[in-house]
Amino acid sequence: MRTLHVELGERSYPIYIGSGLLERLGELSIARGINRNSTHLIVTDDKVAPHYLQQAEETLAAAGYSVISHIVPAGESSKSLQTFEEVMTTAIQGGLDRSSAVFALGGGVVGDLAGFVAATYMRGVTFVQIPTTILAHDSSVGGKVAVNHPLAKNMIGAFHQPVMVLYDVNTLLTLPPRDISAGLSEMVKHGLILDRDFAYWCRDHAADLLRLDPEALSYGLERGCAIKADVVSKDEREGGLRAILNLGHTIGHAIEAVGDYGRFLHGEAISIGMAGSAMLAEKLGRDKGIYEETVSMLKALNLPVTLPPDVSVDDIMAAMQHDKKFTEGRMVFIVPEAIGAVSIVKDVPVDAVRCVVEMLKGESV
Amino acid sequence: MRTLHVELGERSYPIYIGSGLLERLGELSIARGINRNSTHLIVTDDKVAPHYLQQAEETLAAAGYSVISHIVPAGESSKSLQTFEEVMTTAIQGGLDRSSAVFALGGGVVGDLAGFVAATYMRGVTFVQIPTTILAHDSSVGGKVAVNHPLAKNMIGAFHQPVMVLYDVNTLLTLPPRDISAGLSEMVKHGLILDRDFAYWCRDHAADLLRLDPEALSYGLERGCAIKADVVSKDEREGGLRAILNLGHTIGHAIEAVGDYGRFLHGEAISIGMAGSAMLAEKLGRDKGIYEETVSMLKALNLPVTLPPDVSVDDIMAAMQHDKKFTEGRMVFIVPEAIGAVSIVKDVPVDAVRCVVEMLKGESV
Repeated sequence: MRTLHVELGERSYPIYIGSGLLERLGELSIARGINRNSTHLIVTDDKVAPHYLQQAEETLAAAGYSVISHIVPAGESSKSLQTFEEVMTTAIQGGLDRSSAVFALGGGVVGDLAGFVAATYMRGVTFVQIPTTILAHDSSVGGKVAVNHPLAKNMIGAFHQPVMVLYDVNTLLTLPPRDISAGLSEMVKHGLILDRDFAYWCRDHAADLLRLDPEALSYGLERGCAIKADVVSKDEREGGLRAILNLGHTIGHAIEAVGDYGRFLHGEAISIGMAGSAMLAEKLGRDKGIYEETVSMLKALNLPVTLPPDVSVDDIMAAMQHDKKFTEGRMVFIVPEAIGAVSIVKDVPVDAVRCVVEMLKGESV
Repeated sequence: MRTLHVELGERSYPIYIGSGLLERLGELSIARGINRNSTHLIVTDDKVAPHYLQQAEETLAAAGYSVISHIVPAGESSKSLQTFEEVMTTAIQGGLDRSSAVFALGGGVVGDLAGFVAATYMRGVTFVQIPTTILAHDSSVGGKVAVNHPLAKNMIGAFHQPVMVLYDVNTLLTLPPRDISAGLSEMVKHGLILDRDFAYWCRDHAADLLRLDPEALSYGLERGCAIKADVVSKDEREGGLRAILNLGHTIGHAIEAVGDYGRFLHGEAISIGMAGSAMLAEKLGRDKGIYEETVSMLKALNLPVTLPPDVSVDDIMAAMQHDKKFTEGRMVFIVPEAIGAVSIVKDVPVDAVRCVVEMLKGESV
């Protein structure tokens, strides 16, 4: 078992990564001080539940915990206020109290939804992340939780740190190939923003990662989580530095919105977004070659780097108007300075962004 | 202008109390560092809006602020997730960003709703409280914000401190008598829990308070806010001490729920709840006389101290099952030890509580 620590003062917590960790959920919950006199809630989705819910319930029960569970439909549509209210109903009817914990067993959608429940149930209860996707190595670290508003993604949320993240790499073996690639998108992103060597390592080990080689995967997850944890430690509430984690996300979120949060996986959308950010970097005068290198990494991981021709540039631009990366009406972008280094550029001209979106439609690639 | 400070480290903020302060909203917003390049949102209700919204908008505009507003129906029913989503829609469509502020112009319902919007819009933006009721002297201090779940009150919420509380006592002059008494209920509560002299002062100045004598009212609000602020400073997130502020609230919330959050005003319900807590105190062996003194104070302020005969004891008991004051299945009560002193008693027998609720139906009064 590999253990990382996210350093956040009194809100510090461990990330455990390894094979077969789900069996140790009860034991580790006791170690983290989760109360055995309260009822706890596992939130999961209908794709994860058949594989792992029973095991999670049993290991908690064997450790003396009383648990109930709530299964939501898999997919982004569950990050709604309606589903949020339904989970709250389960929590209230199940008698959860202020000493209860909410366990998120699943990918990013489940983590964000369950985390927002944990952040707001009785004004905040204990939260545990048990990611079952590669993508969730990103979303499960850092305490950003949210649901979507019909007009924009992640618009309603909070910062609420888990008391632990338990990453059982065995739960990744049932992932379909498209989800594997989409998850690796956030992994290589951590290299692209802060660790040149890791970015190239991801490209060089793309085949191993894609076939879920345990050694490559564990190293990649550990390094990805470590980079993220380091940034979060320095800027818990996204006052400044933490924004660099949003590389590719401004365009990516707009792509997801235009695809009604179903056509593109999050990791696919931000892959296209990162290709766009690299184009923007060159347009803004950064080193030539950033785009070519970035695209080679993304393609090695079987990720898309262009927009399908039927996607409307106008729709993408309109969707960006609601994105949270606008401050005071100006457009803010995370721009690569090199492979492994980015900067936060305010006042990016909207025309330049529009031009990039047009290029992402494949006309120039 | 009287100024109190709530001491919460980097989240410290001032409470301004005085006549005509609404005119100074723009100036004080600038002093508190609220950004003049973002759009801000005033949330108010349809009873307050005709009196004070235009003035609030104009003073902000005169200070260089761009503001939009959202008017909700007056009353507890607006503390719903549905209304919350509607306010979020206004905020998104109005282009609020991370540097925006949400101003709550109104009573406790508006403060709690707008505060939860501020706590969760883009994971948290600036919040300003402009209470227009006496009751809100309590709810506007301390950062507890929430909406109701159909099964229980205040079940979905957060701790989110305002950057200032602006209390213009002129806005209280339009309050109907029933709201005046209900507001004074929280004021005398602050005396009952921590300040014996202030509790008796409230009784002795009841007539002045009920006719809104500016001098008596300003002193009462200042003293009430100061007691609350002192408790909040010592226990921001309700880890222990802060629970004493809930005197009368366990029974009170159940009464509100049974009355469908419309029959009883919050202050009326907790007045009955405080009478019940005083009865419980005597049942649990505390000094005789607590109940009689407490009731004399509440009656002096024209507050109810008994339950109407048609209210069902079973319904009240059932409603308490969902109350947040349960921890690990046991019943927790704030119990008066004397006038001006309370303790937190865990393991209160449910039978004793049931007996008190039966007595509150007037059979023994």
